Amino acid sequence: MSAQKAYEELIKRVREVSLLYSCESVLGWDERTYMPRGGAAFRAEQLGLLSGLAHEKFTDPKIGELLAQVEKSDVVKDADSIEAANVREIRYQYDKRTKLPKELVEEITRVTTLAQGEWVIARKNSDFKHFQPWLEKVVKLQKDKAEAYGYDGEPYNALLDDYELGATVDQIVDVFTGLRNDLVELLGKIKGAPRKPDVSIIERDYDVELQRIFGEAVAAAIGFSFEEGRLDITTHPFCTGIGPGDTRITTRYNPKRLNDALFGIMHEAGHGLYEMGLDKKNHFGTPAGETFSLGLHESQSRMWENQVGRSRAFWAYFFPQAQRIFKESLAGVKLDDFYGAINDVKPSYIRVEADEATYNLHILLRFELERPLLTGDLKPADVPGEWNDRFKKYFGIDVDRDANGCLQDVHWSAGYIGYFPTYTLGNLYSAQFFAKAVADMPDLTQQFESGQFLNLREWLRENIHQHGQRYRADQLVQRVTGKPLSAKPLIDYMTAKYSEIYGF
Amino acid sequence: MSAQKAYEELIKRVREVSLLYSCESVLGWDERTYMPRGGAAFRAEQLGLLSGLAHEKFTDPKIGELLAQVEKSDVVKDADSIEAANVREIRYQYDKRTKLPKELVEEITRVTTLAQGEWVIARKNSDFKHFQPWLEKVVKLQKDKAEAYGYDGEPYNALLDDYELGATVDQIVDVFTGLRNDLVELLGKIKGAPRKPDVSIIERDYDVELQRIFGEAVAAAIGFSFEEGRLDITTHPFCTGIGPGDTRITTRYNPKRLNDALFGIMHEAGHGLYEMGLDKKNHFGTPAGETFSLGLHESQSRMWENQVGRSRAFWAYFFPQAQRIFKESLAGVKLDDFYGAINDVKPSYIRVEADEATYNLHILLRFELERPLLTGDLKPADVPGEWNDRFKKYFGIDVDRDANGCLQDVHWSAGYIGYFPTYTLGNLYSAQFFAKAVADMPDLTQQFESGQFLNLREWLRENIHQHGQRYRADQLVQRVTGKPLSAKPLIDYMTAKYSEIYGF
Repeated sequence: MSAQKAYEELIKRVREVSLLYSCESVLGWDERTYMPRGGAAFRAEQLGLLSGLAHEKFTDPKIGELLAQVEKSDVVKDADSIEAANVREIRYQYDKRTKLPKELVEEITRVTTLAQGEWVIARKNSDFKHFQPWLEKVVKLQKDKAEAYGYDGEPYNALLDDYELGATVDQIVDVFTGLRNDLVELLGKIKGAPRKPDVSIIERDYDVELQRIFGEAVAAAIGFSFEEGRLDITTHPFCTGIGPGDTRITTRYNPKRLNDALFGIMHEAGHGLYEMGLDKKNHFGTPAGETFSLGLHESQSRMWENQVGRSRAFWAYFFPQAQRIFKESLAGVKLDDFYGAINDVKPSYIRVEADEATYNLHILLRFELERPLLTGDLKPADVPGEWNDRFKKYFGIDVDRDANGCLQDVHWSAGYIGYFPTYTLGNLYSAQFFAKAVADMPDLTQQFESGQFLNLREWLRENIHQHGQRYRADQLVQRVTGKPLSAKPLIDYMTAKYSEIYGF
Repeated sequence: MSAQKAYEELIKRVREVSLLYSCESVLGWDERTYMPRGGAAFRAEQLGLLSGLAHEKFTDPKIGELLAQVEKSDVVKDADSIEAANVREIRYQYDKRTKLPKELVEEITRVTTLAQGEWVIARKNSDFKHFQPWLEKVVKLQKDKAEAYGYDGEPYNALLDDYELGATVDQIVDVFTGLRNDLVELLGKIKGAPRKPDVSIIERDYDVELQRIFGEAVAAAIGFSFEEGRLDITTHPFCTGIGPGDTRITTRYNPKRLNDALFGIMHEAGHGLYEMGLDKKNHFGTPAGETFSLGLHESQSRMWENQVGRSRAFWAYFFPQAQRIFKESLAGVKLDDFYGAINDVKPSYIRVEADEATYNLHILLRFELERPLLTGDLKPADVPGEWNDRFKKYFGIDVDRDANGCLQDVHWSAGYIGYFPTYTLGNLYSAQFFAKAVADMPDLTQQFESGQFLNLREWLRENIHQHGQRYRADQLVQRVTGKPLSAKPLIDYMTAKYSEIYGF
């Protein structure tokens, strides 16, 4: 077989694996939206079969042989070519996935399935002792996983790589620590500020059907295509890029609070725009047409949710529409008061309910515990104490119960250690990209004010989406913004916004 | 490997094939309900991959080896056992599917995909000449398929077997001809009858949301579980049994006509009850837990739609509820007038809009053309003339255009020759089973009048559903009713009903 033929065969096989995963995506979407309750056990079987088949096909030694042949050929001689990127990233994943012993994968699945059930009980009773033995098991298995992968530096790097490919603690720890210090300082200023937004504006009656109509109008305005996508309701909102021409988002509506679904829809639509912006038509199922960085993905959702959706310019355009739709609850409300209300900052226990300013503090705290958990410097038994000490230091409040502290998130019970940092990476990328977009399009604020959002969408498509996995996240940030990752754009953006709203 | 182990391995493999098909079912349901339009091309790829993998796994020579080992062992020594039925039916399907050359299957797929597109154009323009070359190609390929399968008697038997396993022309042709003659006679009596129902009653405003609520109440009352199923909207209604605990039906609503969705829902719920009544919990994906006869399946849908849903006893219970829900359109309407309106008989061109009495004449006409098409005694070019002659003879009206005649159905363009008879078999089985149910439960009418439908559901479950593929359809009819298939129960049932309504 010629090297070109081998490359084509490799792509064909990898694409087929992705096609199987895309079937899983449809079944997963269905499971969370419309599946009758009675179908749950059977659905697990269907999903198990599909992922088993996909894994089997991807770790087939034939993939390794094809890779070896192509790697030493002219097909990849141009390191910047799509072919080279595809081969590089397929190799990376192939080596990773073939390194994990089947028994370890099965044991992780078995333990985390049980651990999630026990976590639900522990959280309900706010009983850390109940969860502790399971956290110990999970941490142990994650250490084993890190060892199986192998790593430079500390074991955390191996886990982080599963979610933020190529990222290392060394790359991010200084940025994170700087961000933490700046956020604690910013929070102090906000707390002591003379002005406070009136949040009651957004906590009135907001008819769910009207929220849907307004949310869909907003999603369409920023470029989410309802010809190639849809919006449904789920308990836990998500976005799934099923394949070319099919990207779906979900949300949940709170009839007493406008923010949840509105910014939730913009968030998921931001993920959706990334999926829609990938070149799936030509490269579906191969690295060139897919994403690999949760941080980059989150940067897209957070930009549309925060830099756009929580901007004054966005509401200069959309607020009159909102007032027409939510006639009673927004009657007589001033734009600036509404803008203040949707940007209210208030330290609270729960990460998923956190505002834009405190959100990253929640993440950084978790990151600071996960690393020593992996090295063994922090014992699972000591997690609540360590959590509560840091929470007091960063947020200025005492954690009243572990359900509001270290037991709040599903991640650890599910074995997702190394996942949290991607949320903050997303916020950092988002601010850094957005600052560059503003530099490239100095009239972006005016564009938003007149309802023009598609130039930003195009900018993102051109600079980020279309590249798929051609560049690792750190390379892409450097390439697009001309600088390495930094906390400065995020802090500058927040300081400017909150000083205006809070008057400090 | 011991024979027992070989049997278990066989079942495991066959179950896995079914699991793949069940994933296809989810994707197919999604395609017809919620998929964004833009996802169509990609969906075809996903479905193609899944059915390709399933076919590959089912025709794996290893299946043949396992069958051979088990067949000569003690595992199947009790011919009435589940094991024996499983092995018998897996063998039957394995032999069939391995007989078709891959090239022929692909050619059929290719030609019928094109033919369906051309049929749409031909029907739109009522231009048979446009469709004729495609009908010729399809007939030729179906002949090739019949030859590849092999058959006793005429080639039609081989095709019929794909939809009604084990059925032959010899078994059904006399019953069909007798039925046709009796129906033509019955139709004559109805035409000359002194009384005519007032159909305007059911052609008033029927709010779609209220239709859904009433339809779901009816479906629930006859035993369709909404914990293990759901009802959605599609252009072409269907039922899909995805797996244990997950059976879904769809309908379409006509805001100006009550019948369509109401009896449509009962029809699909009847299919659904069959799916729910199979022992999928223990035998999902193997012959013992699955259906194989479209006729038997149709008998369940038609029984709930017609013998139950169009009975006076059913409406004695449900009509007061309907009047409460459809306040204005049913105000002052008498039960007997409503009962007449939903049983109105009126010869018309289009099969899918036909009433209970004329429906089978549509089918029998098609059956009478399909057989000679296969033997070559009828040329595709002569189909319109032959169609129109018979239509005049049976229905008493002239076909005005081929779009209202031989171009109306998608089946032939899709390659489904041999499919139509299953509709009439369903109606025949339905009447024969129902007569026996009434004999077993003489107070069934009174049960219906008091809203009790679950005893019939239990009777069907015990006599039919739970057996899966243990008995072929003809055996099951004999076993349950003590008689071979006959047109008499259907004709008796219709004569009794229509003579009462029409007063002849």
